[in-house]
Amino acid sequence: MTTSPFAEHTSRLTRELIHSLVSETDDGQLAGRVGVIAAKLEDAARRPQEVTVTDPHVTSGRIRDDVTPASSARNPIAPPMLIERDGGESRCELSLPLQYQGPPGRVHGGIVALLLDHVLGNAANVGDGPRYFTRYLNVSYEAPTPIAGALAVVGRVVREDGRKRFLEGEVVCDGQVRARGEGLWVAPRST
Amino acid sequence: MTTSPFAEHTSRLTRELIHSLVSETDDGQLAGRVGVIAAKLEDAARRPQEVTVTDPHVTSGRIRDDVTPASSARNPIAPPMLIERDGGESRCELSLPLQYQGPPGRVHGGIVALLLDHVLGNAANVGDGPRYFTRYLNVSYEAPTPIAGALAVVGRVVREDGRKRFLEGEVVCDGQVRARGEGLWVAPRST
Repeated sequence: MTTSPFAEHTSRLTRELIHSLVSETDDGQLAGRVGVIAAKLEDAARRPQEVTVTDPHVTSGRIRDDVTPASSARNPIAPPMLIERDGGESRCELSLPLQYQGPPGRVHGGIVALLLDHVLGNAANVGDGPRYFTRYLNVSYEAPTPIAGALAVVGRVVREDGRKRFLEGEVVCDGQVRARGEGLWVAPRST
Repeated sequence: MTTSPFAEHTSRLTRELIHSLVSETDDGQLAGRVGVIAAKLEDAARRPQEVTVTDPHVTSGRIRDDVTPASSARNPIAPPMLIERDGGESRCELSLPLQYQGPPGRVHGGIVALLLDHVLGNAANVGDGPRYFTRYLNVSYEAPTPIAGALAVVGRVVREDGRKRFLEGEVVCDGQVRARGEGLWVAPRST
């Protein structure tokens, strides 16, 4: 499932705008970049039905019209996440630009937690049945997660007990675990 | 400390753009809103030095030129967070619009973790001295955190042991704890 090409195009331009805002500290230079992006936004807004995007993002998982700040192609807060099932795991490969930085060169720890929550939540909600919600999530930061690094975020159900699903997962870069997550997801009681 | 008025103005318009993208599913309606915002962006980009903002955001804490996705006035991913010290705690009051939603009506669990990581990290880094980094963060989701609700995020050091600072905090809405965080922040060994 894909989002509207106009929304996806607008969202991509908005991510460029965000990147310009955090990477360009000179107002004059920033204004030049903002002007160029604004002109592209205006151009698309004049003919939304004619806009096309190359390589449109395909939504994965059970969220039918994904607008979440973690994974949506049309929410510029999110890096669009393609979460795929791979041997009993949910897995997403992605790279995060400068707007996700906390300490210099490193992805913000809260963003690392957001990635883990979302991918573990995807793994908790595989299959039909009720929706499972995060009850707790414990994140352990083993090593820095580099900005612009090729990251893999993986998650899996490790135990199930009635309405409870226990999950584990990792953020990996260059073959090294950078962060581990473990948590409990619970389905509401049936009414 | 404030950011440049042009950057802050551009960032505010970008947040409007993000909100439009996640709340307006009709392409024609969305195009109308995008066109209006794009024209404002272009207008500001033509005269960046003349742009002013009402009620500019003041950066708190030790991050001198905050561009983080958690708190920065110039990073549109962030809700600009004003973290203040209050009786030995770090405290931030804020409200999150639709672009931070996970399940319907609720703030995404990963965003809740981001808020807690950032405010607890602020509390861990009060005072001079080395910078403390998150070693682990455990988040417990006690109740839904409502979108558009008046939230308070608080955090405090509860124990200190050499290079280690143990933190606790909560996300509160309507007098009820919605999420609890507890974690360990560590300063690197001196070289």
